[in-house]
Amino acid sequence: MFEHALLGELLGDEAVSTAFSGEAFLAHFCQFEIALTDALGAQGLIDNKSASAIIAGCRSFKPDMQKIRTETVIDGLAVPAFVRELKTHIGDPNQTDVHFGATSQDLLDTALALSLKGINKKFALDISALNEFLQSLIHAYGQNGMMGRTRMQAALPISVSDRVRAWQAPLERHLIRLEKIDSAICVLQLGGAVGTNHVFGEKAVAIADDMAASLELGNPAKQWHTERDNLVEYANWLSMVTGTLGKMGQDFCLMAQQGIDDVVLKGGGSSSAMPHKQNPIAAETLVTLARFNAVQVSAMHQALVHEQERSGSAWALEWMILPNMCEATACALKTANRLTGQVSGMGHAC
Amino acid sequence: MFEHALLGELLGDEAVSTAFSGEAFLAHFCQFEIALTDALGAQGLIDNKSASAIIAGCRSFKPDMQKIRTETVIDGLAVPAFVRELKTHIGDPNQTDVHFGATSQDLLDTALALSLKGINKKFALDISALNEFLQSLIHAYGQNGMMGRTRMQAALPISVSDRVRAWQAPLERHLIRLEKIDSAICVLQLGGAVGTNHVFGEKAVAIADDMAASLELGNPAKQWHTERDNLVEYANWLSMVTGTLGKMGQDFCLMAQQGIDDVVLKGGGSSSAMPHKQNPIAAETLVTLARFNAVQVSAMHQALVHEQERSGSAWALEWMILPNMCEATACALKTANRLTGQVSGMGHAC
Amino acid sequence: MFEHALLGELLGDEAVSTAFSGEAFLAHFCQFEIALTDALGAQGLIDNKSASAIIAGCRSFKPDMQKIRTETVIDGLAVPAFVRELKTHIGDPNQTDVHFGATSQDLLDTALALSLKGINKKFALDISALNEFLQSLIHAYGQNGMMGRTRMQAALPISVSDRVRAWQAPLERHLIRLEKIDSAICVLQLGGAVGTNHVFGEKAVAIADDMAASLELGNPAKQWHTERDNLVEYANWLSMVTGTLGKMGQDFCLMAQQGIDDVVLKGGGSSSAMPHKQNPIAAETLVTLARFNAVQVSAMHQALVHEQERSGSAWALEWMILPNMCEATACALKTANRLTGQVSGMGHAC
Amino acid sequence: MFEHALLGELLGDEAVSTAFSGEAFLAHFCQFEIALTDALGAQGLIDNKSASAIIAGCRSFKPDMQKIRTETVIDGLAVPAFVRELKTHIGDPNQTDVHFGATSQDLLDTALALSLKGINKKFALDISALNEFLQSLIHAYGQNGMMGRTRMQAALPISVSDRVRAWQAPLERHLIRLEKIDSAICVLQLGGAVGTNHVFGEKAVAIADDMAASLELGNPAKQWHTERDNLVEYANWLSMVTGTLGKMGQDFCLMAQQGIDDVVLKGGGSSSAMPHKQNPIAAETLVTLARFNAVQVSAMHQALVHEQERSGSAWALEWMILPNMCEATACALKTANRLTGQVSGMGHAC
Repeated sequence: MFEHALLGELLGDEAVSTAFSGEAFLAHFCQFEIALTDALGAQGLIDNKSASAIIAGCRSFKPDMQKIRTETVIDGLAVPAFVRELKTHIGDPNQTDVHFGATSQDLLDTALALSLKGINKKFALDISALNEFLQSLIHAYGQNGMMGRTRMQAALPISVSDRVRAWQAPLERHLIRLEKIDSAICVLQLGGAVGTNHVFGEKAVAIADDMAASLELGNPAKQWHTERDNLVEYANWLSMVTGTLGKMGQDFCLMAQQGIDDVVLKGGGSSSAMPHKQNPIAAETLVTLARFNAVQVSAMHQALVHEQERSGSAWALEWMILPNMCEATACALKTANRLTGQVSGMGHAC
Repeated sequence: MFEHALLGELLGDEAVSTAFSGEAFLAHFCQFEIALTDALGAQGLIDNKSASAIIAGCRSFKPDMQKIRTETVIDGLAVPAFVRELKTHIGDPNQTDVHFGATSQDLLDTALALSLKGINKKFALDISALNEFLQSLIHAYGQNGMMGRTRMQAALPISVSDRVRAWQAPLERHLIRLEKIDSAICVLQLGGAVGTNHVFGEKAVAIADDMAASLELGNPAKQWHTERDNLVEYANWLSMVTGTLGKMGQDFCLMAQQGIDDVVLKGGGSSSAMPHKQNPIAAETLVTLARFNAVQVSAMHQALVHEQERSGSAWALEWMILPNMCEATACALKTANRLTGQVSGMGHAC
Repeated sequence: MFEHALLGELLGDEAVSTAFSGEAFLAHFCQFEIALTDALGAQGLIDNKSASAIIAGCRSFKPDMQKIRTETVIDGLAVPAFVRELKTHIGDPNQTDVHFGATSQDLLDTALALSLKGINKKFALDISALNEFLQSLIHAYGQNGMMGRTRMQAALPISVSDRVRAWQAPLERHLIRLEKIDSAICVLQLGGAVGTNHVFGEKAVAIADDMAASLELGNPAKQWHTERDNLVEYANWLSMVTGTLGKMGQDFCLMAQQGIDDVVLKGGGSSSAMPHKQNPIAAETLVTLARFNAVQVSAMHQALVHEQERSGSAWALEWMILPNMCEATACALKTANRLTGQVSGMGHAC
Repeated sequence: MFEHALLGELLGDEAVSTAFSGEAFLAHFCQFEIALTDALGAQGLIDNKSASAIIAGCRSFKPDMQKIRTETVIDGLAVPAFVRELKTHIGDPNQTDVHFGATSQDLLDTALALSLKGINKKFALDISALNEFLQSLIHAYGQNGMMGRTRMQAALPISVSDRVRAWQAPLERHLIRLEKIDSAICVLQLGGAVGTNHVFGEKAVAIADDMAASLELGNPAKQWHTERDNLVEYANWLSMVTGTLGKMGQDFCLMAQQGIDDVVLKGGGSSSAMPHKQNPIAAETLVTLARFNAVQVSAMHQALVHEQERSGSAWALEWMILPNMCEATACALKTANRLTGQVSGMGHAC
């Protein structure tokens, strides 16, 4: 969304957009090839001179993005064109050692892991910041009263604190969950052509150990070419975060109604036809993003039906879905932080 | 699905259907009222004589299911009619102490937790059994070879064991996940009318402790009337299980093709028009159930947008979705176990 | 849903449940076999004596539902067991002429068409009734004013009529759409084993003509074993109806809030904890059913990826989804009609 | 997707991306204001001199995209900032006549209609081209035989023509549907602040007539601010098209398997690890895009629950979904046309 000229700031997020950009992925591909070459050299599968030459070549490599983009239509993903170009750049005699034993999915999934690692750090910070904002609302207004409402009807009085706690408690759980999921998904992918690392023989484990260490990623017990459950769990987490924020956004919309007046928001949106209005844009946007992710998560589950040793169709579906879910989540956190900053009154003094 | 006269055995599961039946829920409602009354008595909020009378009344209570069903249309859920009937059954002078301080959601969510507790035990057993079946396939055929296939094209040879391990590894993770999720969702719900347990005053914590202990449920840090993240994580787990089995089912369908012949299945389905056919019904059913749950999970995420202190509409959406997801998962596990039992050959001797 | 002991009346519909019951489908299977046999006799593919015997046999046939249910697990659908039983019932020498040239999908899809035909008649009546109810609200309260609200904020005054017309106008379009879709889906299915009707040779067209006429169904240009677009369009229609009613329900929930008070509803739901409450259950239920169908429709689209000449997995997904969507739609119409009947005031006299 | 540096050509479409760009929408906003001003002048609601000045101003207006993008975060959509800038550009004394009687949604929905009009023309051409390609496959290979397969098992022989017809027939229906839907959605939106066009008084109908004529759009019986059924029907159409192509893609993937060999494709994708492979990328991509749209369509249905006179949250959900669905559909048509061009053999001479 961030790329959209008009809606990019409202519904997108720059940091996530950058983390999923072509530039970021090509840089991660280079990191992968460097780590692989280093490990191959250390394990004696290629000679050290070749390894040094390849690593130097990876560092000086300037891929032709447009060419890769065009060839991606033929190959179904960017890695083959990237590897062809890189090999040409390295040239003889070492180019035959480039990408040795690896497959496209190894690069692409590892690049994803590297991108998610940075994104998750940001998520943790943004959730913590939001929790603090909510805590400050409790501090400022928590003792105030408001009507508790069930089934959209006035029920019995509660305190502002009671309602804010129901927004906050899931966020605390999401932070704990993130830590666990982050360590499950920010891991190396290394399986080779059909997931058996057959080219590496008995050196496969050592190579993976070396690569994971130098890429600062986890090293899973086995490759996960077709085992996408951890990624799905992550997508689920993203949508749980936006769902939690969507509930808060919906509550804010309802509280801001004239006649209810349980919150005062400053800095709302203007209307082209009604200058007197103060629209709760940030609150509405949270609902939008929650419903968006709640739909997208279904696609990640569909992609679990991943046939044989690699499904081009299931895998590409992830590429269409997961970046947008991350961006929606980042945007929702940013928006929620903005929304809480707009509060200039909650509940009613008792 | 199990209720369907024709499709119930193919696409449903009796144990899960029973666990979500009206009878099961009414029984759980009684268990809740007994546990509540017991705790209220122990904490001195009602007198012991009244408590004994109510508990005896709960045990002898035979609710009029048809009446409750009819009144559910008016009230939006079964609890108000259940409580009215129970009070009438208990009669004066103790009926005013019945359901004291509790709200409908306390009963219904606790009843759900009690049902899921039994269902999860079954899931754990079924997954373990499937893992053993898969292990026995590895034992019998694991050394055989087959063509590894990526993007539905022949790639390089793998062993049967390589492919089966990719079905098995996620199941092992699902078992570990289940343990954690089970303890998060099989918990007491107790919040009272607007989630504040205001009627219980400072006895609220002690009452919840007593109730959780006697119901053999966990006792969460706070009520979760509107915090449905743990339930969503459970729904996600259900769909990850069916997705894992759907991948296995899809692989079996592809392996069973004439011309590929990587598996021999006995006991396939017959065709009304082509008596020579052996259809891989169980394998196809796994794909169906995976795609079913992959869609349903979206609704559970939509239901996170749960307004104010109780959303009738978001909550009722869970009732329409979660039982079907559980049943689909149980059916998929049963079907996967049947499918592995149909295998009479895999791969090709090297 | 109707089968559920507690929730059946709230969230289900008896007529739709009956139309999709095992009994209804077995009866439709018999109708199909009678129509087929009649046509085969008329076209000289079987002799008239055999035809008469088979038709008589179909009429006296009492299928063993439990046996069919059990064998459905093996065959993946009920038709093979049904045909086996029917053949046994007809016995020699005519049983070889039973089901001649037809395949299971011909029976099952035609049975679906017959069920939907009745359901659609009911939908048309229910939508018309609702339109009249809404017209009567306009008649009674249309001149009253209320605050128009955009982005959940007071905007400018409108009339009650303005808001009600926005509920009504889509219903009028849905009625027009239904007529067209009904004629596209209430059609014969006849393709034989692989969709070519090869057994019938040049008599195929005449047989289909005869059968469609006697079953009072449309006769499509070709069989639609794998072409499910019309069914998807129907599912889309169902969800558009519930979406329209969900918008109305959401509006009613918002209008019924204390502090807004734009509608007075009588006969709302009671609360087990708060006897003073009048919950807008019917309005909330409309939102639930809208979100339910909005999720389900995704599965019907997934089922368009229907491989080769028949996909067991895609087709079975329809069976799990479409009946529930029909039932949710019928329930929503019933609930909307009940809701409009609860109105005893709208807007405010100007 | 087209914006993505690496995947844009594979999974995106330039024409659709351009039609939904910020530039295109700002141009449409100007077209709207010109048509409105022209109609207001013709109906005497503003004087002709003012009208001429405004129209000239619209033509010379160069909006500051970055400023609008930033202010969109506050206002929730781009129109208020656009109108503010335009008014400043027009200046006194005529700026008070700018945007007279219109609301943001009038501009944005009309801009959408203008964009969809061009996109639909392209869809019609692409579907027709694909139909011709398929016809040429029938011409070239239709008499060849192949094994008909049901439930992924060999059933009975069919002709290539039989299978291709099942891909083609839905496309023919989609073309007919498109014509009807196009006329329902490519229509003016004009309702004013709360949908009543109250500012225009009795001139409202004439103004809408004038505007629709000059914008070459249809003129609906009433504004459709909250009646999104036609848009949902369009989204459904998009996903039916990709679903039809996904079925074709899945069939191609299955036909291209070694051991099945029912199609010969040239120009498939290469693998970074297995140079011998010819991956059916285009066919796989069709499956991906089908499953993508099958998920997205759910969000459009969720957005039917559009509260009161304008829902910011439901409406913004459309913005996040519909452009991607259009682009996926355009990409699928392009990919299907490429795929059919790769066929160099189908079936087997009888």
